[in-house]
Amino acid sequence: MPPGPPSTLDLNADVGESFGRWRLGDDEALLPHLTSANVACGFHAGDPLTLRRTCEGAVHHGVAIGAQVGYRDLVGFGRRFVDVPPDELAADVLYQLGALDGIARAAGGGVGYLKPHGALYHAVTAHEGQARAVVEAVMAYGGLPVLGLPGSLLLTIAAEAGLPTVPEGFADRAYLPDGSLVPRGEPGAVLDDPSAAAEQAVRLAGAGQVRSLCVHGDSPGAVETAAAVRAALSDAGVQVASFA
Amino acid sequence: MPPGPPSTLDLNADVGESFGRWRLGDDEALLPHLTSANVACGFHAGDPLTLRRTCEGAVHHGVAIGAQVGYRDLVGFGRRFVDVPPDELAADVLYQLGALDGIARAAGGGVGYLKPHGALYHAVTAHEGQARAVVEAVMAYGGLPVLGLPGSLLLTIAAEAGLPTVPEGFADRAYLPDGSLVPRGEPGAVLDDPSAAAEQAVRLAGAGQVRSLCVHGDSPGAVETAAAVRAALSDAGVQVASFA
Amino acid sequence: MPPGPPSTLDLNADVGESFGRWRLGDDEALLPHLTSANVACGFHAGDPLTLRRTCEGAVHHGVAIGAQVGYRDLVGFGRRFVDVPPDELAADVLYQLGALDGIARAAGGGVGYLKPHGALYHAVTAHEGQARAVVEAVMAYGGLPVLGLPGSLLLTIAAEAGLPTVPEGFADRAYLPDGSLVPRGEPGAVLDDPSAAAEQAVRLAGAGQVRSLCVHGDSPGAVETAAAVRAALSDAGVQVASFA
Amino acid sequence: MPPGPPSTLDLNADVGESFGRWRLGDDEALLPHLTSANVACGFHAGDPLTLRRTCEGAVHHGVAIGAQVGYRDLVGFGRRFVDVPPDELAADVLYQLGALDGIARAAGGGVGYLKPHGALYHAVTAHEGQARAVVEAVMAYGGLPVLGLPGSLLLTIAAEAGLPTVPEGFADRAYLPDGSLVPRGEPGAVLDDPSAAAEQAVRLAGAGQVRSLCVHGDSPGAVETAAAVRAALSDAGVQVASFA
Repeated sequence: MPPGPPSTLDLNADVGESFGRWRLGDDEALLPHLTSANVACGFHAGDPLTLRRTCEGAVHHGVAIGAQVGYRDLVGFGRRFVDVPPDELAADVLYQLGALDGIARAAGGGVGYLKPHGALYHAVTAHEGQARAVVEAVMAYGGLPVLGLPGSLLLTIAAEAGLPTVPEGFADRAYLPDGSLVPRGEPGAVLDDPSAAAEQAVRLAGAGQVRSLCVHGDSPGAVETAAAVRAALSDAGVQVASFA
Repeated sequence: MPPGPPSTLDLNADVGESFGRWRLGDDEALLPHLTSANVACGFHAGDPLTLRRTCEGAVHHGVAIGAQVGYRDLVGFGRRFVDVPPDELAADVLYQLGALDGIARAAGGGVGYLKPHGALYHAVTAHEGQARAVVEAVMAYGGLPVLGLPGSLLLTIAAEAGLPTVPEGFADRAYLPDGSLVPRGEPGAVLDDPSAAAEQAVRLAGAGQVRSLCVHGDSPGAVETAAAVRAALSDAGVQVASFA
Repeated sequence: MPPGPPSTLDLNADVGESFGRWRLGDDEALLPHLTSANVACGFHAGDPLTLRRTCEGAVHHGVAIGAQVGYRDLVGFGRRFVDVPPDELAADVLYQLGALDGIARAAGGGVGYLKPHGALYHAVTAHEGQARAVVEAVMAYGGLPVLGLPGSLLLTIAAEAGLPTVPEGFADRAYLPDGSLVPRGEPGAVLDDPSAAAEQAVRLAGAGQVRSLCVHGDSPGAVETAAAVRAALSDAGVQVASFA
Repeated sequence: MPPGPPSTLDLNADVGESFGRWRLGDDEALLPHLTSANVACGFHAGDPLTLRRTCEGAVHHGVAIGAQVGYRDLVGFGRRFVDVPPDELAADVLYQLGALDGIARAAGGGVGYLKPHGALYHAVTAHEGQARAVVEAVMAYGGLPVLGLPGSLLLTIAAEAGLPTVPEGFADRAYLPDGSLVPRGEPGAVLDDPSAAAEQAVRLAGAGQVRSLCVHGDSPGAVETAAAVRAALSDAGVQVASFA
């Protein structure tokens, strides 16, 4: 029997990406529409007070908290590949996991999963040393579900280690016929129109290959897109709920 | 009845204060002589891989791990007062506590107490807003013993909050007759001679007002001093053991 | 003869305070209204590419470039006092001056003055060690006009050293009868209404005690305020021009 | 006519790589043996006060000052490749050049050349975008000699832009028969014995393909190696002098 549409689908977005004086995204407005919040951990974004308030907001709205771990690169927002040796990367991930978990627990919650950010997200689709380092850190922390790109090396290695894996699709990014994303910067790469994102979300749900859908929290219409995606999924009979 | 000499005394020192390429202190040689290791948490010193190796060493030697939290000031090594608002400081402390605890647990241990570092250590002897912020963070984390200066505002507020407090003395720093430390930079402020430090340690133990003794891990003769202090305490019939 | 209204008055604002992914202020829209641009130097804000584009914009619009030096404190945006020893602070200021000047010269301009930022601005009104350190750095760099608070220790020491000094007033901050500013956070501390700021600018110009007026570049109505202030000064017969 | 041994050869080493509390290398002892000092610029190492004291030392000993620019990566000491977009890298290099030059001029000197550090040094041997970015920054700064690996893309592009180029050899690193370096980590990669380094220096001088020789300032015997290399070159009739 081919995989059918899942009965439930998770909806995730990046939050907690402000840093000191600099605000990014409207976390307060976005959180109620999500089921999973990828909270920055301070290495690419997110000062501790921002993380604390973000975790309190997530707990308040019953949204699962994920550790959005990244390279230590504030000025590059974690979007530039850094050739970190695996033992350093594993320690970096462990540090970020613990830091966010401490803050999340103080807020009455806890870290429920891990999702790599930016250039690390892309690197671990294929970079074996870094992918193994991330999984090693998650195992050393006691084990957590890992959210990532379907078919990525990260999810393969995580599954081999016995970790739950959560393949995700992108509601607001255009796909090529082969299933890969239209590169950022090319025309039409980002679906700015909430209804276009909502349609794509329903299509991805129907294809049955992802367990979570991502909307980009730092784009101007993020709140509208998240609301439209959630409503469209409900209308299509898909229950929107955390995988955790 | 006046306080008599304690049956047991703790011996603590700062470790984990290397950062990337820059080495500081000889943690491997120092750890076996300690009963409590104040491990840096990354804000004033200590990259994640250094912290991980340091925690593994502490667990290996059966040394209790403490979170040596500081201001976010690598270039100043946490030795410059920073006027951090209390809500930011509380979040900073929580972040550091969680980060080190995650790494310590991955190493088979866990954070057993908190000791502020450098300028924060001095600030919270009298700065109420910052002292309350540190205690608030420890409470939010679930509570931990707090190590600090006898009579400091930090220990008073921590005790009022119901936290165990551990007043400490300095084996290798000279004291003035009024019980305060000879300021660094003045002649004789630091006891470089291990036997002088050992003598003072026995004297402090006898006075019965401290439950832990600190030796400075980054001074050249740190290992010899720690060994001499420990031997002298044993000879004087004081059991050297963690308070935890 | 009492000081009369100056024939020319400078109009300054903070720019270049974005950092990587995080945008702050609308520099492109603000620059044409200014005669002096206080460009961040990377320690409290301003990544190098932002500084380069900001300097190019300032040169394009014929706006004088000033080095807005601050404490090394990105997460605190330079708004938290840091107890930096004077020799470190002097080197920090020199480093920032040179960095911005290199970028400004590459853009066809050059640093024309210095203005301290945030908590450093306030500290050097009274903190002698830090005020002397800033002046020492400016002298070591070859000398530049120093912009600051009228009556501040910084301007006094700078004048004693033979540096040109530029006392400034705040168009969009409310003053108390004694000439000091209404503390931020108190009601009415900030004049959000462009016409109120414009009125105050004309009044400050008439009082003849300042040679530059500051508008805050990161407030929502900054561009409108700057335009209104400039227009009102022109209407009042005050020529708006750089002091440099 | 084949290239003969040069009448003069430069001797360079990395200095100014301490950071705050963390000391690295013995710059005071090393500087008198050098003719060119590659001074860190704060991105991979070197706090401003360290840079100032290092530049004062270089000026005192008549040693040319070079800007040792690197990736913004303190924890990795600039030894990890960072995929910085060219426009950001050019601005980063310009910022570092200006910062060090300001400090060097305050010390009575000035930046006389540029040498990339660590992973950037290796990247620009072949990474065209980053190599062009470094050259663009040097041109925007007004032009400086560029020191690097013989045959590297950096030197080719620099030469095409009309900049003086200085190919260097390594006195204390072993070479393979094809002229490339034995990779670090392999046995014998580093020549620890000062006399072995001195012999190789004379051999490299005789081959006539380099205009500068590098000794590694942060290895334990750096001072002895530099002294031995310099003496051996003099004995072999090679004048040791800056290329600047």
